[in-house]
Amino acid sequence: MKKINEEAIKLVIEESKYNKKNNYKNGGPFGAAIVFGDKIIASAHNSVIESVDPTAHAEINVIRKASQILNTGDLSGCILYTSTEPCPMCLSAIIWSNIKEVYYLNTKEDADEIKFRDKQIYDYIRGENNILNMHHIESIEAKKVFDKFEEITDKNMY
Amino acid sequence: MKKINEEAIKLVIEESKYNKKNNYKNGGPFGAAIVFGDKIIASAHNSVIESVDPTAHAEINVIRKASQILNTGDLSGCILYTSTEPCPMCLSAIIWSNIKEVYYLNTKEDADEIKFRDKQIYDYIRGENNILNMHHIESIEAKKVFDKFEEITDKNMY
Repeated sequence: MKKINEEAIKLVIEESKYNKKNNYKNGGPFGAAIVFGDKIIASAHNSVIESVDPTAHAEINVIRKASQILNTGDLSGCILYTSTEPCPMCLSAIIWSNIKEVYYLNTKEDADEIKFRDKQIYDYIRGENNILNMHHIESIEAKKVFDKFEEITDKNMY
Repeated sequence: MKKINEEAIKLVIEESKYNKKNNYKNGGPFGAAIVFGDKIIASAHNSVIESVDPTAHAEINVIRKASQILNTGDLSGCILYTSTEPCPMCLSAIIWSNIKEVYYLNTKEDADEIKFRDKQIYDYIRGENNILNMHHIESIEAKKVFDKFEEITDKNMY
């Protein structure tokens, strides 16, 4: 295990308290930070209600912020600190951004206890509940778009 | 199964072709739309490279757009159409936004074939690979933030 950045831990706890000042009317009690080397690149808090954006979790916000600051969505080598175990949305965003190391404080079971749906979403992905109805429609035209995409050799992959 | 909106299907295929004009240097071949009743509220395409934002998948973009248009992140009753089976990030965003019905065209196996990592991320969440290192740090202070949160009765939940 790499050396833990104590400053980043203090910061994610601070960020997780940010929405308290408005009695959590603007978002949940969650904070995150991204570190590269010894440097804290960015930090953020949950702003789901304030931003009118169900995707505005602390981790999504901090990944978007760090990408703007570093001018790349490829955050390889960065470490993400978060006040709570990421939900599957944030976990996947972390993987898409090429971050490989995550430190978290509260667990998804803790989040479940304070009535957030993280655990339900994990359970859905693992096939353990049916909170969403997914319908597959076969489409030759959609498949053709993928075929054409494959033919292009100088595209940018991510 | 509800009546399928053929217009929305045409639109998500159109959106999935959007990045072709720049040889997919701005993002992947993916499109999405959100429908409420008979009305298409919003549509979007993937803009991961163009927006310098690894979270800017078609579904995330369209959820953010529809939330701004409807002035709420609660998209209950809306239906999401997407050109490809959502990755776990987008799938979770759909659940967070309270959308319950999703229609998709290409599958995650199709996406795997054109070298996107959707399937790898599903496999990670199901415990079938180890592409991310998650470290839990016990924190009494972080737990206290949750305890205080629970005490507040007039907060906004989502």
